[in-house]
Amino acid sequence: MTQATTIHAYAALEAGGKLEAFSYEADELAAHQVEIDVNHCGVCHSDLSMLDNEWGFSNYPLVAGHEVVGRVAAVGSAVSKVKPGDSVGLGWHAGYCGDCFSCDTGDQNLCAAAQPTIVGHHGGFANKVRADDTAVARIPEGIDLQTAGPLLCAGITVFNPLLQFDVKSSDKVAVIGVGGLGHLAVQFLKAWGCEVTAFTSSDTKRKEALELGAHHTLNSRDEKEIEAAAGSFDFVLSTVNVKLDWNLYINTLKPKGRLHFVGATLEPLDLSLFSMLLTQRSVSSSPVGSPASIEQMFEFALQHNIKPQVEVYPMQQVNEAIAHLKEGKAKYRIVLSNN
Amino acid sequence: MTQATTIHAYAALEAGGKLEAFSYEADELAAHQVEIDVNHCGVCHSDLSMLDNEWGFSNYPLVAGHEVVGRVAAVGSAVSKVKPGDSVGLGWHAGYCGDCFSCDTGDQNLCAAAQPTIVGHHGGFANKVRADDTAVARIPEGIDLQTAGPLLCAGITVFNPLLQFDVKSSDKVAVIGVGGLGHLAVQFLKAWGCEVTAFTSSDTKRKEALELGAHHTLNSRDEKEIEAAAGSFDFVLSTVNVKLDWNLYINTLKPKGRLHFVGATLEPLDLSLFSMLLTQRSVSSSPVGSPASIEQMFEFALQHNIKPQVEVYPMQQVNEAIAHLKEGKAKYRIVLSNN
Repeated sequence: MTQATTIHAYAALEAGGKLEAFSYEADELAAHQVEIDVNHCGVCHSDLSMLDNEWGFSNYPLVAGHEVVGRVAAVGSAVSKVKPGDSVGLGWHAGYCGDCFSCDTGDQNLCAAAQPTIVGHHGGFANKVRADDTAVARIPEGIDLQTAGPLLCAGITVFNPLLQFDVKSSDKVAVIGVGGLGHLAVQFLKAWGCEVTAFTSSDTKRKEALELGAHHTLNSRDEKEIEAAAGSFDFVLSTVNVKLDWNLYINTLKPKGRLHFVGATLEPLDLSLFSMLLTQRSVSSSPVGSPASIEQMFEFALQHNIKPQVEVYPMQQVNEAIAHLKEGKAKYRIVLSNN
Repeated sequence: MTQATTIHAYAALEAGGKLEAFSYEADELAAHQVEIDVNHCGVCHSDLSMLDNEWGFSNYPLVAGHEVVGRVAAVGSAVSKVKPGDSVGLGWHAGYCGDCFSCDTGDQNLCAAAQPTIVGHHGGFANKVRADDTAVARIPEGIDLQTAGPLLCAGITVFNPLLQFDVKSSDKVAVIGVGGLGHLAVQFLKAWGCEVTAFTSSDTKRKEALELGAHHTLNSRDEKEIEAAAGSFDFVLSTVNVKLDWNLYINTLKPKGRLHFVGATLEPLDLSLFSMLLTQRSVSSSPVGSPASIEQMFEFALQHNIKPQVEVYPMQQVNEAIAHLKEGKAKYRIVLSNN
């Protein structure tokens, strides 16, 4: 059960390089480690950022892939959470310190010493991947494994804020951007019971947002339309990674409303304090969620039949899949399959 | 009880003009109105802003004063909340629409149609002032009326966030700025049970902050000292009205921490999203509180012997008082007295 293994992966050997077949030796499993047979692995924008060393801390060979769905192949001697054959998922984190306040209070995703799955660790563009048991999420029976991968990063990124900030079913909410994250946010918020407005600048995506469950759409590039929505929302979730006129969006919030960012923009937010002060508004941001919140998400997705819309590529076509994503053509997420 | 009255006040007749004796006729009291005999009235920076038309919506003659402490002189026919002789306070708001979601849910301070005490309404630099019963706060016996005025604006502005954002006694908190608002924030947070750090650039104020109950002080102008406090606080309350390096302060927050602004800065906040994203931090702001929260504040202040530090001037010396405040010499708040 715990023997050393050769893992067959696809790795970039240098920044921006094409992925190549790459094998590495994995030692005997440590007591708390889990080895996962990768069935499917989503391709996320942050995989591309790491492969291209956009953030400056990539090491090569680099095996990306952090939206892993598979079955437990083997477990270390101290693992009781899962057993071989169980369906599991692995997301952005492959381990936590287990000893800080965030870990102790169920916010492992905020652990400052968390081990990212694809930073200094080999990820899921492979036949197998390893992780600490604490980072592995159990996938309930009934979840469609082929489409589930993107829930592990895109999904939990938009689902976790609903838990963290106590979004209520009676809330009026909006999602900025209908893409990989946004198309899941619309589905989650609809199922949450909220009245959902989707902001998008694309006519095609407006139509799709309505099909996904949005009750209304607004043009994210039309100032007048946004101004007319002043004071409308309890919660606005931004999933875009471009700079918009955030003060305009803050003004769409009701008193005590929250503008929450899960899309990362590098430009400063440039917020006018007065648009927040008189109405007690908040602005916030968050990363992925804890393993427990990932498991809650799976239960909720199962109950409400929420699925990422994916395009599936065989794992061997990882380079084609990446090119497709880079071209902005993915609808809405890409999954690599070992099956 | 409800007859018309001549009210003797001090008014500016033009922007920046000295205040002059000014009388006006008040009609018969409306059903829900309360007439207050002003005993004391605090002088707040926003009085100066209104007197000088800094915000562009002042009308003259303008009677400022919105930190009123006094006794009920008369009540309208429908008033049951207070009776003549009761000790009451009046803050930034003299009335609310009574009919919006914020009013209905106890957040009258966020009512978009609230009537400010000194905007299109004559305030408390006078022998009497009138207000709707809903806006009047009852002052419990035992509160020192001479020093209580500043609680009605400065006090509630720093106290209300503790209620609104569920600040816990076990929280580590910081107050940026030890002035009119900050010296009250330090006292409230100490009494709340928190470990309190005061940020100030003044050596004198450092010493005073410790006397007021702060456990620690840090130099608000010393980058290295602030950097060394990274990850320390659950809640940071900014009471200053100048631009600081907010990203530096956001980094003093723990995961899930909140930087809350009650001091108003006109310059954009310039926030880096990444300083918020990885650690799920929030930034927010709020105005004064509801009448019910003002009454909670009075009970809390009484229980914990919290008092504004004030300098008292006779009402007739309102111009001298204003000049003293403008020179930045007030320690920490000024109160005008009719006694």
